[in-house]
Formats: sequence, structure tokens, C-alpha cells
Amino acid sequence: MNLIYYPAACSLADHIALIEAGLSHKIISIDHDRMTEDGRDFRALNPKGYIPALELEDGSILTENPVILNYIAETSGKLLPRDGIARWRALEALAFMASEIHGSYQPFFRDFPEPEKARAREKLEKCFAILSAQLGEKPFLVGDEMTIADCYLFWVLMVAPKSGVELPENLGALFARLRARPSVARALAEEGLS
Amino acid sequence: MNLIYYPAACSLADHIALIEAGLSHKIISIDHDRMTEDGRDFRALNPKGYIPALELEDGSILTENPVILNYIAETSGKLLPRDGIARWRALEALAFMASEIHGSYQPFFRDFPEPEKARAREKLEKCFAILSAQLGEKPFLVGDEMTIADCYLFWVLMVAPKSGVELPENLGALFARLRARPSVARALAEEGLS
Repeated sequence: MNLIYYPAACSLADHIALIEAGLSHKIISIDHDRMTEDGRDFRALNPKGYIPALELEDGSILTENPVILNYIAETSGKLLPRDGIARWRALEALAFMASEIHGSYQPFFRDFPEPEKARAREKLEKCFAILSAQLGEKPFLVGDEMTIADCYLFWVLMVAPKSGVELPENLGALFARLRARPSVARALAEEGLS
Repeated sequence: MNLIYYPAACSLADHIALIEAGLSHKIISIDHDRMTEDGRDFRALNPKGYIPALELEDGSILTENPVILNYIAETSGKLLPRDGIARWRALEALAFMASEIHGSYQPFFRDFPEPEKARAREKLEKCFAILSAQLGEKPFLVGDEMTIADCYLFWVLMVAPKSGVELPENLGALFARLRARPSVARALAEEGLS
């Protein structure tokens, strides 16, 4: 499968997950004009126009970050408990980060007016407090093992400084632990970020 | 299980899914002060403070609409194909509606300044075009059978007029077909909306 990505964008989560899960894959970047590095028009592949997109073996394009991560977990049998509440907590955290946090980063990515940034900061503070409470003293967001929720969380925490909102201590410490993992280091290097 | 809801809010999707799937459940409304109708402080049950929340038999609270819908589907064995691309298309549509469309309704729900409404309308037009293309001539969003994606889509289409964005014809027709289903009629009646 091919991951279509933009360096440092939220596709980093899927990139980390593919490496961590040990799935055979290729990564294909897009440029500012949304042309893929292998010369295809990304908007023709994915009319939504945004990354990540996962190109499956039959040519189908799967979109939406939490769903691509779920697909990677289901295909590999890794990074997501098969049953029990931990499974639902990982999917819940992914949906929360995608809907509540990613959306609240837009004013900083796209330089919206200051009142919108202030409103976003207020929301992000509450969101980080919820993630911090969920993490508590555990090694990973939903338990003792890394899940796809941690893959997305790494990107969320990497981008947080752009918002000016300070991270709770346990989230900062998890970010440092994740950054030290070989999978994360490799993904960052492959995206030219290390 | 108990669905904690607010009438006409996006919890309507879960309400429809619970009825359609035939799962034994209770619905518990919250008021403007976020007290449940059985006298509990909703923010103590769910620190996120927003609906829907699904209270499981052991007292756990599950949040995030696409995840609650997925849980209802997995628990009942209904409303979501077990495998194949249709499964992923249903989950993808749910994530898309939750992240891209629900967020774009906020300016209308909370009366944000006009430039934000205009930006949201532009985005909603693109989103409805994507859903319309996905639906095509099929009876339901991802195929011949109703899925949890249609449950959420019903709410999305019910709210669309608030934005002033006109719906593509095939989405309007699907809305009418869904509205005529006994499950949807019952959910609307139970929320005082019919």
C-alpha cells in the first residue's frame, strides 16, 4: 500500500503506524500544487484534496486519518486491542483528536483572525486537559502498549507549540518517549524532519 | 445501555441506530444546564460536556459519535458490513461528516460572525458534493443496505437548511426515504420532533 503524505502534516501519524506495524508500504509525497512525487494529480485520486490518503493494492483510495489508522491496525493485527474497552478508548481518542483538536489547529495553520485563534486556544486547553487525564501515569494513552491513538497523538503534540498552548507535563513526557522510538525517528527522517 | 442525548442534536444518529439495530436501550435527555432527566450532573459523567454519550452496562461512558455508532454496529452485528471495502467506506463517511461537516455547522449553531459563516458555507458545499458523488444512484450511502453512516447522514441532512446551503438532489431524496423509515419516525417522535 502507498501512503500519500505531506511532510510534517497529520499523515505523519499513518507513516509512524505503518513502520511500527511492520507493514510493507511506500510513501509518496505531494507538493504545494498537489502533484504527487510520481507525477499524478492528487485531486484526481482524492477529490477531497487533503492528506492522508492510503492507496490500496487494488487502486482504491482510503481517506480520513482515524479510518486509515484503523485499517492499518486491522490489516497488521497490531496497534489496537482486538476487544475490550481499551479498543474503544483508542478509537474514541482518535475521533476526539481528529474532530476537536485538528479542527482547532486550523486558525494557526491558516492564520485566521485573532478572535478565532483565542477561541481555539481556549478549546485546545480543555482538549489537552482531557487527554492528560486519560493518559494519567500510563506509558501510552490507553494502556501499557502503543496504539494507533499514540501515533496520532505524537503529531498532535508535535504541532501544539504553534498554538501557544502549553502542554500538561505528562503529555510532554509521552511526546519525548515517543520521539525516542525507532519507528518515530525513522518516520521523521523520511519526511526530512530530523 | 443508555444513550444520553439532547433533542435534535447529533445524538439523533445514535438514537436511530439503536432502534434500527434492535438493541435494548434507554434514552436519557439532558437539559440546558447539562443535568440529565434522571437528576445527574452530565459533566461529572462526561467531562467533555457534549453529547452523545453511551452509558454501558458496567457504567463506563463511551463518547464520540462515530465511535458510539461503530460500537452499536459491532454489538448488534447490524448496520455495518463485517468486511470488504463497504465497511471502510461507511467508517470513512462517518469520520468525514464528524470532522468536516459537523465542525462547519458550528458558525450557524453558535451565531459566529458572517465571514466565518461564509467560509463554512463554501466548505459545506464541497462536502455535500462529495457525499452526493459517493451516494450516486444507490439506495444508501455505501450500498444497498442501510449503515451507521446513513444514521449520521440523516442528522447532517436535517440540519443542512440552517446553513443556507442547498442540498444536491440525490441527498434530498435519501433524506426523504430515511425519514419515512419506522426507526427514524420513532426516534423523531421520542425526541418530540415529529
